[in-house]
Amino acid sequence: MHIKLKNCQPGHFYAVGVGPGSPDLITLRAANLIQSADTVIVPRSELAGESLALVTIRDLIGEQEVIEHVYPMKRDSAQTRSCWAEVATEVATRVSAGLSVVQVTIGDPMIYSTSSYLIESLTELLPSEHIHVVPGISAFQATAALLVEPLTLQEDRLTMMPATDMAAIAHALKHCETLVLYKVGPRLRQLAALLEEHRLLDQARLACYVEQNGREAIFRNFRDALTDDSHGYMSTVIVRVGNRSWEQNPPVGEVA
Amino acid sequence: MHIKLKNCQPGHFYAVGVGPGSPDLITLRAANLIQSADTVIVPRSELAGESLALVTIRDLIGEQEVIEHVYPMKRDSAQTRSCWAEVATEVATRVSAGLSVVQVTIGDPMIYSTSSYLIESLTELLPSEHIHVVPGISAFQATAALLVEPLTLQEDRLTMMPATDMAAIAHALKHCETLVLYKVGPRLRQLAALLEEHRLLDQARLACYVEQNGREAIFRNFRDALTDDSHGYMSTVIVRVGNRSWEQNPPVGEVA
Repeated sequence: MHIKLKNCQPGHFYAVGVGPGSPDLITLRAANLIQSADTVIVPRSELAGESLALVTIRDLIGEQEVIEHVYPMKRDSAQTRSCWAEVATEVATRVSAGLSVVQVTIGDPMIYSTSSYLIESLTELLPSEHIHVVPGISAFQATAALLVEPLTLQEDRLTMMPATDMAAIAHALKHCETLVLYKVGPRLRQLAALLEEHRLLDQARLACYVEQNGREAIFRNFRDALTDDSHGYMSTVIVRVGNRSWEQNPPVGEVA
Repeated sequence: MHIKLKNCQPGHFYAVGVGPGSPDLITLRAANLIQSADTVIVPRSELAGESLALVTIRDLIGEQEVIEHVYPMKRDSAQTRSCWAEVATEVATRVSAGLSVVQVTIGDPMIYSTSSYLIESLTELLPSEHIHVVPGISAFQATAALLVEPLTLQEDRLTMMPATDMAAIAHALKHCETLVLYKVGPRLRQLAALLEEHRLLDQARLACYVEQNGREAIFRNFRDALTDDSHGYMSTVIVRVGNRSWEQNPPVGEVA
């Protein structure tokens, strides 16, 4: 392979997505930045025994300084922001001293990610041209790939949202062809009931711990997941609501 | 790097996403499958002088058979399906003879991709366990990363759709916090007028040819793009409509 790769620049920060968990779903850019960083910040949820991001990148760690940062799993904006503001100070100290710092994050740093909070604080401490983001494969993409089921075609609309608010989900089902739900958590049965009510349970798929070695579970039949409440955790739900074809929706100003 | 990689299996087909265009945004899994394939199918739009996917993976091509397949850019389902049914026959012949075949696709194979049509035809010709999909970075992710602007946080809803139908876009703006639009094409000014009407033009960003060497253009100010109609092509629009916080939206069955 002769692909040209850029190493970390001294005095720069990189928020790097590492994909859903399998080490080989990391991009070449992400892998090279992690390997060439002086410091790697690894987030760990206070509920997890180990950092999923660290498990994913373990084979890329050698001489780098690794800082594991435990973050709260509470839905509390003030607490979340203050936690990441502390990390931002640690990052800024190193970056100002000419070191390169990578924060790794499961999935994509711009999709429901702790990186957003860290970057928010960092923009007050570092010049914006020293802050970089590298995209990563998000769990919904890995799930669709494993299912071998397209997410969108032609004029389809895809909506992605957390599965916390059943009324909001019922609303979304009316305005998209594909619905992606994250963070189902303890609401798996509630969600199943809602989908059944909309006659969409047969079009719903559930993936738990997708691309995480030894823990992955894929349910093509949503009903099979309902035997165990734990299947709502680290999960992605994809509901294929319908489809909008080219023929039904010619573009504005174009003849069908 | 000691990450374990699986080569292509003989007699298997892989639809492989290669990301938006930069060779280093390919995943390790995709790169290794492309390198170990007997045959690589490369799609090229009838309007393009060269295959963007081929440019992206050029450094991964050695002894593999490369088949460039020109596909129609018409919004015609029957013509598109019949074109990919032909390719499916070529693929099935090779796979049945014990060869491994990779079809590469820009972006992600499950998001508005030609791979979906090929897979649709292949499922009639091959056992389903011989058909695999590898996800890729989609242009909206690469765009958000370059902008260093989060797509979703907390309770935000993201909707992704083609920018063909202005009425559908106006509708979507009312039902999400982040709107991602693909395929703006010649409708750039129409879209700008619509966003201005909704007082959202200042929240809109445009990226053309994102992560494509030498051609990339990023517009943080949407108005700057309106000088040139060509900026609607190979483009991604991201509109940050608003935000939904945890505090405003406590989950069902949980105390705020």
